[in-house]
Amino acid sequence: MPFVRFQPANVVADVPSGTPIHIAALRAGILDLELPCGGEGACGLCQVEVVGLDAPVLACKTRVTSDLVVRLPDPSQTAARVLGDSHALIDPGLLPGRDCLTPLCRDLRITVPPASIEEHYSDWTRLIRELSRNRGAVSVTCQLPVLRQLAAAARAAGGQLTVGVEESASGQRVRDVRSGHSTAHALGLAVDIGTTTVAAQLVDLDDGSVLGTQTAYNMQIRRGADVISRIDYARSPEHLEELRCLVLETINGLVELLANALPVDPRNIRAAFLAGNTTMTHLALGLPPRYIRESPYVPTVNSVPELRAQEIGLNIDPQAIVAFAPGVGSYVGGDITSGVLCTDLSTSNHDVFLFMDIGTNGEIVIGNTDWVVACACSAGPAFEGAGIKCGMRADEGAIERVAIGGDGEQLEYSVIHGGKPAGICGSGLISLLGELFRQGIIDRSGRFFKSRGASRIVEHQGRRAFLLATAGQARSGKDLVITEADIENLIRTKAAIYAACSLILENVGLTWDAIARVYIAGGFGRYMRVADAIFIGMLPDLPLERFRFIGNSSLTGAYSALLSREHRRRMAEIAARMTYVDMSSNPQYMDRYVKALFLPHTDLEQFPSVAAAFKSRRRNAS
Amino acid sequence: MPFVRFQPANVVADVPSGTPIHIAALRAGILDLELPCGGEGACGLCQVEVVGLDAPVLACKTRVTSDLVVRLPDPSQTAARVLGDSHALIDPGLLPGRDCLTPLCRDLRITVPPASIEEHYSDWTRLIRELSRNRGAVSVTCQLPVLRQLAAAARAAGGQLTVGVEESASGQRVRDVRSGHSTAHALGLAVDIGTTTVAAQLVDLDDGSVLGTQTAYNMQIRRGADVISRIDYARSPEHLEELRCLVLETINGLVELLANALPVDPRNIRAAFLAGNTTMTHLALGLPPRYIRESPYVPTVNSVPELRAQEIGLNIDPQAIVAFAPGVGSYVGGDITSGVLCTDLSTSNHDVFLFMDIGTNGEIVIGNTDWVVACACSAGPAFEGAGIKCGMRADEGAIERVAIGGDGEQLEYSVIHGGKPAGICGSGLISLLGELFRQGIIDRSGRFFKSRGASRIVEHQGRRAFLLATAGQARSGKDLVITEADIENLIRTKAAIYAACSLILENVGLTWDAIARVYIAGGFGRYMRVADAIFIGMLPDLPLERFRFIGNSSLTGAYSALLSREHRRRMAEIAARMTYVDMSSNPQYMDRYVKALFLPHTDLEQFPSVAAAFKSRRRNAS
Repeated sequence: MPFVRFQPANVVADVPSGTPIHIAALRAGILDLELPCGGEGACGLCQVEVVGLDAPVLACKTRVTSDLVVRLPDPSQTAARVLGDSHALIDPGLLPGRDCLTPLCRDLRITVPPASIEEHYSDWTRLIRELSRNRGAVSVTCQLPVLRQLAAAARAAGGQLTVGVEESASGQRVRDVRSGHSTAHALGLAVDIGTTTVAAQLVDLDDGSVLGTQTAYNMQIRRGADVISRIDYARSPEHLEELRCLVLETINGLVELLANALPVDPRNIRAAFLAGNTTMTHLALGLPPRYIRESPYVPTVNSVPELRAQEIGLNIDPQAIVAFAPGVGSYVGGDITSGVLCTDLSTSNHDVFLFMDIGTNGEIVIGNTDWVVACACSAGPAFEGAGIKCGMRADEGAIERVAIGGDGEQLEYSVIHGGKPAGICGSGLISLLGELFRQGIIDRSGRFFKSRGASRIVEHQGRRAFLLATAGQARSGKDLVITEADIENLIRTKAAIYAACSLILENVGLTWDAIARVYIAGGFGRYMRVADAIFIGMLPDLPLERFRFIGNSSLTGAYSALLSREHRRRMAEIAARMTYVDMSSNPQYMDRYVKALFLPHTDLEQFPSVAAAFKSRRRNAS
Repeated sequence: MPFVRFQPANVVADVPSGTPIHIAALRAGILDLELPCGGEGACGLCQVEVVGLDAPVLACKTRVTSDLVVRLPDPSQTAARVLGDSHALIDPGLLPGRDCLTPLCRDLRITVPPASIEEHYSDWTRLIRELSRNRGAVSVTCQLPVLRQLAAAARAAGGQLTVGVEESASGQRVRDVRSGHSTAHALGLAVDIGTTTVAAQLVDLDDGSVLGTQTAYNMQIRRGADVISRIDYARSPEHLEELRCLVLETINGLVELLANALPVDPRNIRAAFLAGNTTMTHLALGLPPRYIRESPYVPTVNSVPELRAQEIGLNIDPQAIVAFAPGVGSYVGGDITSGVLCTDLSTSNHDVFLFMDIGTNGEIVIGNTDWVVACACSAGPAFEGAGIKCGMRADEGAIERVAIGGDGEQLEYSVIHGGKPAGICGSGLISLLGELFRQGIIDRSGRFFKSRGASRIVEHQGRRAFLLATAGQARSGKDLVITEADIENLIRTKAAIYAACSLILENVGLTWDAIARVYIAGGFGRYMRVADAIFIGMLPDLPLERFRFIGNSSLTGAYSALLSREHRRRMAEIAARMTYVDMSSNPQYMDRYVKALFLPHTDLEQFPSVAAAFKSRRRNAS
């Protein structure tokens, strides 16, 4: 049996010959080594060095056949690499192929043959015939200026034309024609409108490349932290208009940042694909959201017809086509159909998968290629850093991982992009909660034991708190602490998620064993350590290799739909197939939620790996 | 054999029992009795009185079984009745059924069922489902304000909604939603854009009734009488814009007249359907028309995509949908496909028919349900009264029929709507030319014989002219005359039409006998006497009952397409099936044209009925 030593942790494992390095790492107790693409060899992010080999290898694809020394990467560097390409976590086979893009709006470079006495089709007909080569006969429309320019354009440059073509469910629309084959690339925008965080991405519609990604807190936060409070606020037309303006201001601010960074004129952005939950979509469009939370919980619209940027108030090309990811119902919106597009549900997998989008609303989808069921729970914005004293988004300066040693007195953390910490983000909070619990600094209900980590337990506004960084260590010059109130908040959040997961599982008559894969989506997800999340009872206690992080899949889905007709079709199909199960009206939900308000859970049998760790600790202690 | 006496002419005929009255009238030498609908009993316009019966009967449907005295109507009263309903000349079976209208834009009065926990479709989906009951599943779009009003509207008035829905080739578009079932009727506009005359009709989209019809000269006339001269004028962008504004001013003037007459706000007009020849369509849209007359004679567009009124500059609802009748090529435009819609070509007739639209351009279509061929000839605007000294449109004050007796010294005429004559319109010109020729006042080349009607032959600007009305008799206080130059002009026009007809017939390998029906379209057509038109050699010498006047069929077709999806479909099918034959490049055309520059023709054998009349006259004279 080969023997593998992992550096710099200096831990070892004996494994059968042929075991992949990442499994050997698990055997050695290393839970750090993440496989963002789930071990498909797709993302290239699990690179490790094998001492004696020239080039790094992939831990997921390299098998141990003899004794090895393996050097693991610095986790913060991995995170930085991931940040560089926000869609790297998705199986590339699920993203649009870059050589056959069919974006919502694209520049087609075609050559219109000259007319002759024999073939005297009109200029417009000859143009349509060329466009049809790309899509077969569909209805083609245009606005008048296109026709006015057509005769001259079709007769210049040997019939070479650059034709801006929009695609919609009902057909094609020519938005402009230019003589010659333009070398300029058309631009598009993908947006995830989260309740707490809005992410926008500038995309090259010609080659699919991401030109920039920016995130910001949704300015609506000042009028309510969650969708319910915003729906309530929006009851008056003036308040609805205020919320509409706030989210548009947020998106337009991101557009400006993205455009300035290149730089490019935002009016060159020709198409946008937006994904958001049903309330966010309604508020962005100025649609009264009140019926979303009044029985029978029916929104104005799930599948928003295509609109123009100027109708919405998006500061891009006023005539840009704007599409929305289709929603399923009041509590399962376009962000979820968009996210599920980043799983292999819509392709060819008969296995049952679980999709969890952990944002301010936790949405959970379970299904396979035959059936799909979705539910939602109000998780709250804690994991997005909101409602937590020192919380922040997963952005530069955020503590994204914590390690506590030395009886709770020693603390190490990694900060996104390095430097002094400015706060702590979702993955950091999960890591911290896991470490506090693992090290016995907090009890199963989240209260501090005075005995452990005592020097870091401080008094903060009348309640106990854990000192993450002193004023001197922190960017703000103030202590960074996590309070007992913060911990309660986090426990409520993880309890809501776990309760919803376990209830929907029961609803479809399955047990955890049946789940072949768990997709974890959410802005924080990609830095999160699954082992920590299981340890605190947020994620089910399944083998680590079944988990796959897919990051902000709502944004990635919007990116894919922006670029590909096939992905738009799949997204519509996902929305059509998905069944919504209402949790709020299920009396069992509250029961399960209350049981989950412990670390990891009231019922330890549901977390055998955590129970085993407790046992081993007690054995070691005795 | 029953014996019929016709009053007031006091002529008689013996006819076999069972002969229809209109055939008996022909036997008695009466060519006046017109059957606008061709003897189908459809139009009700051939009413005659039978002495001894209480109610009038239809000459086409009433058979002679015993001796009768029949009183014929005053022709000018018939014309007035026809003016009252501009579509009365069309077989009602070819017009949209008023109880199942599917206009380009309509108000659907639907009831959206409330949502429930079980059936929690969004408001928009429930709306679409109701709309789909009317059309099956199609793509439905809308603009944002519709969505913003939807939630409240769907929940008021028990879900009763009035939904303004536009139909297009690509699907449906909801333009507005209003709570409750509106009792107001939606308005639409049908327009025939002729080179010389523009006709517009205000239509009730809910019940198909015509609320008014107005015609005016196309203001572009000041920049050229025919399409060729306007195409030449439009070579500069400024001139193109000038022509565009002139025709828009013409149409908008008609819209204002129509709207003021009701009165109604023109901004309530929700949809428009326009038919025009290819050049008129291009000029109305501001599309450079130059390639229409440059080889290979290819227009920018034949099938204009649906546009909005504000794009075009039509002063109706800015968001009104505007559709155009599809054309076939540079010289067979939407006015022809629109006109052919008023024949039974598109329904179920295997007989060969000939369709002639005699406007400034003469367009001729020949075909049956299997094949359709079209050609065009430049007839000139003479029959629209333009280019003729005292010519005018078929409007109030126009002489529409002339009778010359007493060796050419006695003249009678009928004036549209009575009173003093203001000029002479197309049907009056044909009637006059026929009478001048029949009475021997002009010779076969159109020159005046001094011997006949001498007192009416006057000198006018150095050439001979025929005095129609003296200054005292005329509305203008000036002599109304027809000059030799006018007669030459009319002969050139009729020659162009006949030459094109006979050449296209030869092209398809048929002789006149094969033509089961001749449809005559054109603004002047409905007042024209077929016998006169045959007598001068404009129409082929076929039995009178084969001719059918269909009036301004371009306008009627636009009216039908405005109101009916099926008619829009048929129109598109007609355009797709029609083959264009270029006459201008056919060397035989000029030969035939020159041969037709006589009355009725160089070759009298082509006009046996006229030759017979000559013979009988000579016999009577000898």
